[in-house]
Amino acid sequence: MIRPPARVGDEIDAIDTPALVIDLSALERNLERMASFAERANIRLRPHAKTHKCAMIARKQLARGAVGVCCQKVSEAEAMVAGGVADVLVSYEIVGESKVTRLAALARDAHVSVLADNPDQVEAYGAAAERFDVLLSVFVDLHTGGIGAGVEPGLPAVDLARKIVETSGLRFAGIQAYQGSAQHIRSFGERREVSEAWIAKVAETRDMLKKAGIPCEFVTGAGTGTYAFEGGSGVFNEIQPGSYAVMDVDYGLNLDEKREPVSEFENSLFILSTVMSRNFGGFAVVDAGVKAGNIDQAMPKVWKREGLEYVRASDEHGGIQVAEGMGGNLKTGDRLWLIPGHCDPTINLHDWIVAVRAGVVEAVWPVTARGAVL
Amino acid sequence: MIRPPARVGDEIDAIDTPALVIDLSALERNLERMASFAERANIRLRPHAKTHKCAMIARKQLARGAVGVCCQKVSEAEAMVAGGVADVLVSYEIVGESKVTRLAALARDAHVSVLADNPDQVEAYGAAAERFDVLLSVFVDLHTGGIGAGVEPGLPAVDLARKIVETSGLRFAGIQAYQGSAQHIRSFGERREVSEAWIAKVAETRDMLKKAGIPCEFVTGAGTGTYAFEGGSGVFNEIQPGSYAVMDVDYGLNLDEKREPVSEFENSLFILSTVMSRNFGGFAVVDAGVKAGNIDQAMPKVWKREGLEYVRASDEHGGIQVAEGMGGNLKTGDRLWLIPGHCDPTINLHDWIVAVRAGVVEAVWPVTARGAVL
Repeated sequence: MIRPPARVGDEIDAIDTPALVIDLSALERNLERMASFAERANIRLRPHAKTHKCAMIARKQLARGAVGVCCQKVSEAEAMVAGGVADVLVSYEIVGESKVTRLAALARDAHVSVLADNPDQVEAYGAAAERFDVLLSVFVDLHTGGIGAGVEPGLPAVDLARKIVETSGLRFAGIQAYQGSAQHIRSFGERREVSEAWIAKVAETRDMLKKAGIPCEFVTGAGTGTYAFEGGSGVFNEIQPGSYAVMDVDYGLNLDEKREPVSEFENSLFILSTVMSRNFGGFAVVDAGVKAGNIDQAMPKVWKREGLEYVRASDEHGGIQVAEGMGGNLKTGDRLWLIPGHCDPTINLHDWIVAVRAGVVEAVWPVTARGAVL
Repeated sequence: MIRPPARVGDEIDAIDTPALVIDLSALERNLERMASFAERANIRLRPHAKTHKCAMIARKQLARGAVGVCCQKVSEAEAMVAGGVADVLVSYEIVGESKVTRLAALARDAHVSVLADNPDQVEAYGAAAERFDVLLSVFVDLHTGGIGAGVEPGLPAVDLARKIVETSGLRFAGIQAYQGSAQHIRSFGERREVSEAWIAKVAETRDMLKKAGIPCEFVTGAGTGTYAFEGGSGVFNEIQPGSYAVMDVDYGLNLDEKREPVSEFENSLFILSTVMSRNFGGFAVVDAGVKAGNIDQAMPKVWKREGLEYVRASDEHGGIQVAEGMGGNLKTGDRLWLIPGHCDPTINLHDWIVAVRAGVVEAVWPVTARGAVL
């Protein structure tokens, strides 16, 4: 693990770069907005910890009413439980004896849920749960189309749910129905349409389960792009958004009903960078490249500096194009605040999050589950 | 830091996934091929440690004749020196008092070189060197065109070299002339042409320095795509390739003189993954996504399994398209070996490299400088 880029009490000018910096006031406003949405909609909020991987942020979410967190890997769940989270849903299928064993062992210390999309998996979960004398909650994972895990909605889901009900050591918890592909549809109308079609399918499966005598306690899913649709549907009673806490360039491209960029959540996460080279008028080089900010969905964006565009990323450095007449006072050593292109894999690059408020470092948090791929 | 995915002595089937795995025999063949090229060309080999970030691999390179390593960040250099490397070149400009201070302090324990592209920087290096009573070696960084650091070849380079010569605490070491954009030109002929034009410019600057009475001890640069051109030019007397040790999908797209994919170096680096879901004939889902393998230059490629193509990466999972009739025996729990799309940022995601030989884990190396962005 690498040395932290700042100390608590530092002024922001003293933060070494590149560093991942969170604006605490903006973060907390985002957390409160989503919490109050869930409260008004009378649904459970289970934020996805794959975004922040940080137990301290998870605890801020729990303090505002979240019922627990989602994780994407067993090791992520282990890190969250170790960091004080008592209820984790591993929102994916888990395969392989060592991982299933760890999952069941973790259930000695926390409420642990997981997904299934085939009967062998269900048996493996049940055997591990019995070995550790725990009860694992298992959701049927609905396939949303495209390349992804899950079983088809309808009868295949009912069959698998029955298998879960009949397997000792397990508790059938309901349906996981996360439609990842819908989250980044830019047009509000299209995003809503795709979500509503999906919600209708999910409702059908829920009703079929009920008819089959298998009550479906929870219907869970949704992300930052569609949470309002699932959350307001009456079908979903739990939502799993992650990016809303910090936002990024990619989510900022989604449009709202008025065809304006979505605005209910603020950019609270930044890559703080320093200008390394400024020998040519038309561009500058900063010390943040691909290893400081993932570019798979979008390039980072320069925050509140007109005429500066992050156009090129090498592994360790970034190229900033300077519009004509706009770079007059930009010089080596200057700081630029970058909005990450894609928040989840960007946070996963960093060992530390520097949390600032009113220009002062208030906390330096370890990214508890950084690199937790197992 | 996350638990290691394997133990020394494990069979490869026991490696937990996703894991970064190195085939030691292939790695060592790559290291030997580059070392013997440098020996034949009578030039120095200074491999770039930004690729592997692993002190143990650096030591294998040193054992085969490398004079030291390149690093891209001060923290990377610190990690390499702590791991036993006695000669490091930070192949970029360094800006900011805290980093320049650390650089000079590091020179108490190792031979440290760094680049400059402006006179203020040179003064800062000199002041820090005097404070720590060390001698810093400084290269003039030549700008290669495009968006990047450096000074223009020719007179601007000579002026800056003179400044270095005149600054106490510093030693003028020569010219850094790394042309990053040439490395990935697919056509051999075009790659050579672009490299040769660049080499001619570098030679001109070297000759101007000589005329100005400033002997240029080293001309250093080149990467895995162009090392043979610079290395055989008589102009460069040091090369800095990194990726050759492990290779990746992107470098595998470069063509040789016969218009065949380059073949002097082997894929020694893999992302070992497991099939998580196999409910649909046309595709499978594996447990390695963007957080296990960077996709900024190319998608990972399935190793030695015909009809399987890695076509979609979510943050934690990968979608494998299965060609018709080719997926018959592919099932949940099966292992797929993936060639990383882009080696440097992929290694930087992992805390551990599992080193295997003849089907057995021989070492589990920490990625010493993982996350070393400062």
